Amino acid sequence: MKVEIYQDETLDDLQYKGLKLIQKKDGFRFGMDAVLLANFADVGDDASVLDIGSGTGIIPILIAGKTKARTITGLEIQPDMVEMSLRSVEMNELGERINIINGDIRCWSEYFKPSSFDVVVSNPPYMNWGGGIVNPLDSKAVARHEILCTLEDVIGAAARLLIPGGQFAMVHRPERLVDVIWLMRKYNIEPKYLRFVHPSFRKKPNLVLIKGNRGGKPYLKIMDPLYVYDQNGQYTDEIKRIYGKGENGVE
Amino acid sequence: MKVEIYQDETLDDLQYKGLKLIQKKDGFRFGMDAVLLANFADVGDDASVLDIGSGTGIIPILIAGKTKARTITGLEIQPDMVEMSLRSVEMNELGERINIINGDIRCWSEYFKPSSFDVVVSNPPYMNWGGGIVNPLDSKAVARHEILCTLEDVIGAAARLLIPGGQFAMVHRPERLVDVIWLMRKYNIEPKYLRFVHPSFRKKPNLVLIKGNRGGKPYLKIMDPLYVYDQNGQYTDEIKRIYGKGENGVE
Repeated sequence: MKVEIYQDETLDDLQYKGLKLIQKKDGFRFGMDAVLLANFADVGDDASVLDIGSGTGIIPILIAGKTKARTITGLEIQPDMVEMSLRSVEMNELGERINIINGDIRCWSEYFKPSSFDVVVSNPPYMNWGGGIVNPLDSKAVARHEILCTLEDVIGAAARLLIPGGQFAMVHRPERLVDVIWLMRKYNIEPKYLRFVHPSFRKKPNLVLIKGNRGGKPYLKIMDPLYVYDQNGQYTDEIKRIYGKGENGVE
Repeated sequence: MKVEIYQDETLDDLQYKGLKLIQKKDGFRFGMDAVLLANFADVGDDASVLDIGSGTGIIPILIAGKTKARTITGLEIQPDMVEMSLRSVEMNELGERINIINGDIRCWSEYFKPSSFDVVVSNPPYMNWGGGIVNPLDSKAVARHEILCTLEDVIGAAARLLIPGGQFAMVHRPERLVDVIWLMRKYNIEPKYLRFVHPSFRKKPNLVLIKGNRGGKPYLKIMDPLYVYDQNGQYTDEIKRIYGKGENGVE
């Protein structure tokens, strides 16, 4: 299968089951947060999964590789990202399981029926947008700032799109944790698991992973911290496992 | 000064500036959570402080010893606990700064004016009460279960009693963190600092300390974890400092 790669793009090896990803050289490039989220969500066999704001397609492609999900749908507002991610899907021969839709999460009912996903995930823009500082037409800015959708848009839509008991999983910054928890409960997605990601032991967390269930009963479990680097500056065994290179890895 | 100690009571040395505390032998006895909370709240000089559910009086007495608060008021619903804690206050000669009121937080306006405290702290009952399992007349059960007041009663009253910008500080169980955050924001006390307390390194947290400000702007800081025991099963230096026995301690 011949898939075109343009001059302003790179083809990156995800180092997991031979999966590859096309990214723009100077665009928003995926980070560890996306990889951790793809690993954190509990995706059962035959599940239907939605990724809100799928960008390069990194999360749908990783979930397709790591799980037996029946379908993974990405919803992405930027047409050029949709086009690029569809080429990545084609290159990985995942077109039968992954579907990328060009659309706005605020108009979710145009594309989806309510209660139609077992799992909804999102690696949303982290920063509140006060306007002015960033260029709202810039693709990187859209990925980082709440320009085209707010956290409330994402969580509110997830709550409507999940089946009762379905799981919502998200990665965000610790300083927004109150917003995340507040909105999840507001929309009746009860937070059940919380995991902080620390750059290394004794450093403060710089990411938080959270998952909850639509209509779940209140009882939060704080999971063990996830450390990225060990005392020698090497990836910890858990990070190696998640990246597929550790002793339990596939590669 | 002669203060009576009854046969069913013990007189315990708090090992901090000579402070002492009367406790019932078979009643609810203070734990590390109360000590950590007394140390966690930011009590400025001349502050007026309220402890909701003051029990034995441990928190008002520790705050009186550790800070230059002008007045510390304890509100306690159980008359026998009020009587006993007042004897502890007298024994420590803190009657000029500590006042213990026998009352119900749900009726806070009978005792206090709105916006009358700089700092409100609470080490509330941790467990939801579904009725039936525990004896609601048992003093220990009242301290542990939400029989006579709920978390919402505590946080709702704190919000009304704090001055604008005033600090609310609480200790609770991690599994209730969603409830705590939800209620704080609901009553416009924005959570600003979150600290997990772990029995030891690599064990999950079993307590969470949280503080926020009335009307504060959203931005949560996750503090370094607080570990109670080190790898040799000894108190960590920080715990020793909090208990006043470490290198920076007073004793």
